Amino acid sequence: MNKRLGERTLKFETMPYIIGYAGVAGKSEKEGPLGDYFDLTFDDDLWEEKTWELTERKMFLNAVKIASARANLNISDINFLFGGDLLNQIITAGFAARELSVPFIGLYGACSTMAESILAGSVFIEAGFADHVACATASHMATAERQYRYPLELGTPKTPTSQTTVTGAGAVVLAGTGSAGMPRITHATAGRVIDMGITDANDMGSAMVPAAMETILTHLQDTGRQPEYYDVIVTGDLGIFGSETLVRMTREQGVDLGEKHVDCGVEIFKGKKNIYSGGSGCGCGGSVLTAYYLKKMHDSRLKKVLFVATGALLSPTSTLQGETIPSIAHAVSIETEV
Amino acid sequence: MNKRLGERTLKFETMPYIIGYAGVAGKSEKEGPLGDYFDLTFDDDLWEEKTWELTERKMFLNAVKIASARANLNISDINFLFGGDLLNQIITAGFAARELSVPFIGLYGACSTMAESILAGSVFIEAGFADHVACATASHMATAERQYRYPLELGTPKTPTSQTTVTGAGAVVLAGTGSAGMPRITHATAGRVIDMGITDANDMGSAMVPAAMETILTHLQDTGRQPEYYDVIVTGDLGIFGSETLVRMTREQGVDLGEKHVDCGVEIFKGKKNIYSGGSGCGCGGSVLTAYYLKKMHDSRLKKVLFVATGALLSPTSTLQGETIPSIAHAVSIETEV
Repeated sequence: MNKRLGERTLKFETMPYIIGYAGVAGKSEKEGPLGDYFDLTFDDDLWEEKTWELTERKMFLNAVKIASARANLNISDINFLFGGDLLNQIITAGFAARELSVPFIGLYGACSTMAESILAGSVFIEAGFADHVACATASHMATAERQYRYPLELGTPKTPTSQTTVTGAGAVVLAGTGSAGMPRITHATAGRVIDMGITDANDMGSAMVPAAMETILTHLQDTGRQPEYYDVIVTGDLGIFGSETLVRMTREQGVDLGEKHVDCGVEIFKGKKNIYSGGSGCGCGGSVLTAYYLKKMHDSRLKKVLFVATGALLSPTSTLQGETIPSIAHAVSIETEV
Repeated sequence: MNKRLGERTLKFETMPYIIGYAGVAGKSEKEGPLGDYFDLTFDDDLWEEKTWELTERKMFLNAVKIASARANLNISDINFLFGGDLLNQIITAGFAARELSVPFIGLYGACSTMAESILAGSVFIEAGFADHVACATASHMATAERQYRYPLELGTPKTPTSQTTVTGAGAVVLAGTGSAGMPRITHATAGRVIDMGITDANDMGSAMVPAAMETILTHLQDTGRQPEYYDVIVTGDLGIFGSETLVRMTREQGVDLGEKHVDCGVEIFKGKKNIYSGGSGCGCGGSVLTAYYLKKMHDSRLKKVLFVATGALLSPTSTLQGETIPSIAHAVSIETEV
């Protein structure tokens, strides 16, 4: 039995329903143009916790809890939690799973995690193994900076192409049954790891463009769709420079994403100062997909969304050892009219 | 549709076949009692690479390649790779996936990764989305020591309960079709994150026992099986102390694992000196399952194996911040007569 389109696009017969979703964000994100859309925000970087890692976990937990409540479910109704984050050993998701006490499938896809978790969770529903799954991710500017770059206290200057890790979390609850008009996962295209030899860790957006392009073009080819099929093609966190590069590179391949393409990293901080090339982090795509784009689908302002989250699969160790930056992009097609 | 037994045991209708498998190991493992079983070994810690991280990646790649060759498949016949490792941002699996150029689902389950990847890969086959998947993991004593503990050059003394990270890798290729007599994945029980408040990072085996016990007892209850059903119940890396604790604690719960229980971390270094409580690392369960237990199934000396890989979901950061050690265990039931 092969239910793939092409080599790696999954076509879901069950078309899992997104019955709950939630986006949580921090102060800077709240002050941005999407501030009013988040389900929960807080006003400092710690949110009454002792460490930023605990704040990140609190965001993850709240996103799952609000998404479950919106789905009229108790946490104990969730069969499996699919989650990951940027921290070493994905401690945000792992410790959150300890508190939620739900069977846990830990994922690592860097900033592609929101799409990866929706893809994997949908497969569990398609196989008949789950009635409800939660898919979640989170990131925090301060935990990411000190793990990947420098202590914040140093005040290290940033380059124009660098991005600002979003302090935020996103969660969806997928179900095998739902109501007419709810967003559904109709297809997913799994990513391959692509590496074009980019080495500038201050320009992650550009490093992730080739993976985003390869997955989007594969998805369109596998499904026989054109960009015009979608109301919007939403990338996770390519940022301003990366987004321009994506549109230019895909045009060179004969595909015009044109006005269909938007990027969560661009949208979340649009018009704000000192955010350089935009937002990044798995909480960027996670919080913006859930708080903004899924709400627009709920209000019938969008009906067909291709969500493409990209992840840079480097580590500080790999960079120190002279490696280039490999990336991956997973895409999920979310539609309300099927 | 719900094909679960109980809350979290998956019963596979397709019963995916293990059509290929391979275990790769380093010098110390080669000199142990299972040395002759590994498909490929090497004689120093670098295996002609410049860094230990590259050696770990080379093991992972070779395990996947040998497993695929044994299955008479080219790498391009693999639809999806499920993999992870212990390193920050799972760079072993991620960079290996770059070279293999196969659609990649990155996982993090610490030392539970071999079972987690088989579980997830089997679900993709069950859903009809894959003909062949590869599931793989690797660890290296030297990369783990310097990431989790101290630079090796310090010569830090170890405690009796501490374990030695196995330098090894394991891979299986699962398929929707196969031949009579091949090992098949009949059930899988997904783990919850369990934390009994243990804080001693030099006694990971004990920290993982509650998760192993909870998953084994849940599996037996969900399937209506007794320990006697299995020829052997194989844990990943509880080590000598952890294994004794597991048998004692399950007995207190009224279930006697008795002589059915073995542990890869005990077996791989049995009789060797200076290995303290035995082997650990995701390459421990990965290499011993593939090189030893699957070969015994191939030779019909074992017919029913429950493989339970446990992972400790801590990080150096979580430990420094005063957290206890949460753990998870995933179980897969592997049978040749179904």
